[in-house]
Amino acid sequence: MTKEVIPRKTVYRLSLYHRILQRLAANKVMTVSSSALAKVAGVKPTQLRKDLAYCGQMGTRGLGYSVPTLVTRLDEALGTSSLQPVAMVGVGDLGSALLKYQGFAREGFEIVMAFDVDPGSRAAHSGVVRVLPMKSMRGEIERLAVKMAILTVPATHAQAVANLLVDAGIQAILNFAPIILQVPEPVVVNNVDLALELENLSFFIR
Amino acid sequence: MTKEVIPRKTVYRLSLYHRILQRLAANKVMTVSSSALAKVAGVKPTQLRKDLAYCGQMGTRGLGYSVPTLVTRLDEALGTSSLQPVAMVGVGDLGSALLKYQGFAREGFEIVMAFDVDPGSRAAHSGVVRVLPMKSMRGEIERLAVKMAILTVPATHAQAVANLLVDAGIQAILNFAPIILQVPEPVVVNNVDLALELENLSFFIR
Repeated sequence: MTKEVIPRKTVYRLSLYHRILQRLAANKVMTVSSSALAKVAGVKPTQLRKDLAYCGQMGTRGLGYSVPTLVTRLDEALGTSSLQPVAMVGVGDLGSALLKYQGFAREGFEIVMAFDVDPGSRAAHSGVVRVLPMKSMRGEIERLAVKMAILTVPATHAQAVANLLVDAGIQAILNFAPIILQVPEPVVVNNVDLALELENLSFFIR
Repeated sequence: MTKEVIPRKTVYRLSLYHRILQRLAANKVMTVSSSALAKVAGVKPTQLRKDLAYCGQMGTRGLGYSVPTLVTRLDEALGTSSLQPVAMVGVGDLGSALLKYQGFAREGFEIVMAFDVDPGSRAAHSGVVRVLPMKSMRGEIERLAVKMAILTVPATHAQAVANLLVDAGIQAILNFAPIILQVPEPVVVNNVDLALELENLSFFIR
């Protein structure tokens, strides 16, 4: 199996199954049926079986899946068995909230450095990570070979900062600025656009 | 045109075009070609034209689209011409950051009420919105006929709170808790799962 053959949307669902299975394992549940797992994940059982086939897991008819085995297979497929260092750029309200957010560490991501145009005024809000000036960004990212960044700067600065991140060797950006970033291949951008999510919802309640 | 016929993913893209066009209008740009608009939005021109046909906009060959007309049509299609009230539940680190986030108001959403299990300790972080106890939630939501909610409570409480929101008349939930909520039709849930986004990205940088 090579990672390139797994479609991007399948990767999302595999992450979701991974998290659910970790909870089952924590609760000492050793096997799970495809229908039960599919229900919790909000997908059809046929979809689940198709997705899990990407990590070579077929399940055993009548017995379902072994939870520990499936967790291991998903760890391997998703590359989540080691802690991934992340750089954060922009420590405003949203950035400082994300620095304190426990969910990243739980899933294997550690924000190891943070940058801001005004590092002094942000220090109080940053918790344990020191906030550094933008001019230190490239050097620090290169020094620790960080490959992932969270971008929480204003929309007007997002593209310029993204260019700097790409130059520094960042390969994946989680972008919270409400613009579409232009990045060269093979850099990957995922967008979290909160206002767009609300706008999408509002369409369905009129 | 009835709103039901627009696919959910198209609605996302229409929101995105809407935002880009609003910026163009603010900069006094009166017309835009489909290829230019498509490039900024990160979609193919054929996709853009297909999407805009849902609001009856075909453009004029050689002249492109009228920006003000298109903004108006998208306002109508998306229902964004009036301010939409939103209730927030869970005023922890993420919730309080979102309360301060300017992007919602800019896109027509106003967080008019916030609830927390410990409203007293959250008051300092909530800005202008008063944080109320959970027992006031149903009454307040019904009183102001609020239809949208942002859910930023821990995963362990998210489903129980979602049930209460649905009972109170909420029709659309923006869920930040890392679980799949089970809600009755026709309630709509959009999920923003930050750790899942990072996990998805990490797959592509191994």
